[in-house]
Amino acid sequence: MTGPAREVAAVRSAVAAAVADLPPDALVLVACSGGPDSLALAAGTAFVAQRSTRTGTPWRAGAVVVDHGLQDGSRQVADDAAAACRRLGLPTDVVRVQVGGRGEAAARDARYAALDGAADEQGAAAVLLGHTLDDQAETVLLGLARGSGARALAGMPTARGRFRRPLLGLRRVDTVAACAALGLRPWHDPTNDGSHADASLRSRVRSDVLPTLERVLGPGVAEALARSAEQLRDDADLLDALAEDLLDAARTADGLEVATLHAAPPALRTRALRSAAIAAGSPAGALTRAHVRAVDALVTDWHGQGPVALPGGIAVSRACGRLALNTAPA
Amino acid sequence: MTGPAREVAAVRSAVAAAVADLPPDALVLVACSGGPDSLALAAGTAFVAQRSTRTGTPWRAGAVVVDHGLQDGSRQVADDAAAACRRLGLPTDVVRVQVGGRGEAAARDARYAALDGAADEQGAAAVLLGHTLDDQAETVLLGLARGSGARALAGMPTARGRFRRPLLGLRRVDTVAACAALGLRPWHDPTNDGSHADASLRSRVRSDVLPTLERVLGPGVAEALARSAEQLRDDADLLDALAEDLLDAARTADGLEVATLHAAPPALRTRALRSAAIAAGSPAGALTRAHVRAVDALVTDWHGQGPVALPGGIAVSRACGRLALNTAPA
Repeated sequence: MTGPAREVAAVRSAVAAAVADLPPDALVLVACSGGPDSLALAAGTAFVAQRSTRTGTPWRAGAVVVDHGLQDGSRQVADDAAAACRRLGLPTDVVRVQVGGRGEAAARDARYAALDGAADEQGAAAVLLGHTLDDQAETVLLGLARGSGARALAGMPTARGRFRRPLLGLRRVDTVAACAALGLRPWHDPTNDGSHADASLRSRVRSDVLPTLERVLGPGVAEALARSAEQLRDDADLLDALAEDLLDAARTADGLEVATLHAAPPALRTRALRSAAIAAGSPAGALTRAHVRAVDALVTDWHGQGPVALPGGIAVSRACGRLALNTAPA
Repeated sequence: MTGPAREVAAVRSAVAAAVADLPPDALVLVACSGGPDSLALAAGTAFVAQRSTRTGTPWRAGAVVVDHGLQDGSRQVADDAAAACRRLGLPTDVVRVQVGGRGEAAARDARYAALDGAADEQGAAAVLLGHTLDDQAETVLLGLARGSGARALAGMPTARGRFRRPLLGLRRVDTVAACAALGLRPWHDPTNDGSHADASLRSRVRSDVLPTLERVLGPGVAEALARSAEQLRDDADLLDALAEDLLDAARTADGLEVATLHAAPPALRTRALRSAAIAAGSPAGALTRAHVRAVDALVTDWHGQGPVALPGGIAVSRACGRLALNTAPA
């Protein structure tokens, strides 16, 4: 008797490990685009869910396909992905969303909101996402290209809330091979091809940067990037928690106590100030390191300078030893 | 009246800023290899030191050339570099060292030891190193390629002890241009050319990886890598200090208290365990993340497993709720 192909078995064990803590009869949804990663994930999930019905903790699986409506023919791609999921035995919903903006971030926000909505509606305990080790490595490189700190370089967590990423330890070649071994025909997104003139930064990292790194530095680079991300995630989790403690300690009825902030190490002070700015209404995506440094200068390099203007119409000013974050007058 | 070329002025201001806190009559040594970075630094240092004699805080400058003896003709290269420094008006010593091992790290250790020795001997207050923003970006990429954590990715600090790196904000093209503008003819190290079959990993990063990143991701990549490094350095400084606090709290006469370590966040626990292993005699360069994870499992995943063997003949064992780090019997 021969078992399944190595890559098929790897996807199945990854799924089994990712759902091992769920209670009996939990519903697990797979987010499927029809691409090789999420199609392999859907197949693995369908298999492991089916097998679970013969155990003491059976669980149910379904799929959700999000149609972003951003490309010609996206409706057809979504319907094809849903049909593929149904052929795997997964009850499948297609959710059509309106993306409120341009760029990868806007599409991602719309996608997660749609998946959250579907999970709420169906009472799902977990939503599985198909990100692989390659996605993780690309995320780290993109964070570096932006000069980001630990949180961005830490990439994507294995689990956050009900979202889980079982395939973060597998390579994209593994999901492609798993689909082939199972006779599945995944959709290949043409915008993932970095040679297109309008290719996203991420797809250019995928097609040019990672291959160059692997050629020059050796074949373990993607794994090394993922290892770095894992360590930085532990760091970022702790530093974010300590920064919130600092913010709590500095908070008064009249603003943030400068002396408390000044006494804190820079790694916590800058995180606390960034967090305070976001809480005051400054959009996280628009808030740069330069903005945070200007606010930090009100604490550490005070010479009577005026208010610092932040994105979102927030002004930060210092008076009587306190920082006030206010909506600037229009 | 025309001033100096932009790049020459940039090197001079960087040197002036780097020595601004020194007391009057301090001696500042420049470490010079004869390459464009350190030759531009030597020229800038000679100029700013000469100018300082007309101010209230004059200081003196000299140069040290280290001959690693690793390449044919290294003696001649060192003597030429020393001659160039003397033509700039800098009293210059050549120090010949024996590199006790292979690879970049062994050469670096020997170089820093020689520079420290020269500084001790001459009573120097500071030693200036010629590392540029390009070196910093390469260091970050090499750390990533090894899957390193924040400390390695944080790259080189602007100052540590008496070593200072005035040029970390300048690009390598700037030092090359500064040399050209001053009529200096720097030595170009053939082993820095990544096309050689025996080119070091660093020189391949220099010649292949950074140019690809800049082409694909845009021209600001080296600066972005340096910004990431700067943020990670603040993080690493704080986390290392907190990990030492944890180690102090866990230390007993009979080893490290497991309960104290277990209650700590992973980012501190793994750093504390690594630091304890190094203090026990395990060489930092040989101690991998896998070693530290195996020790960590004695704390967090205890099922009676035997001692963990670390490089340097150190064995870590758990008994009676404590970790003992001992030299393993031969």
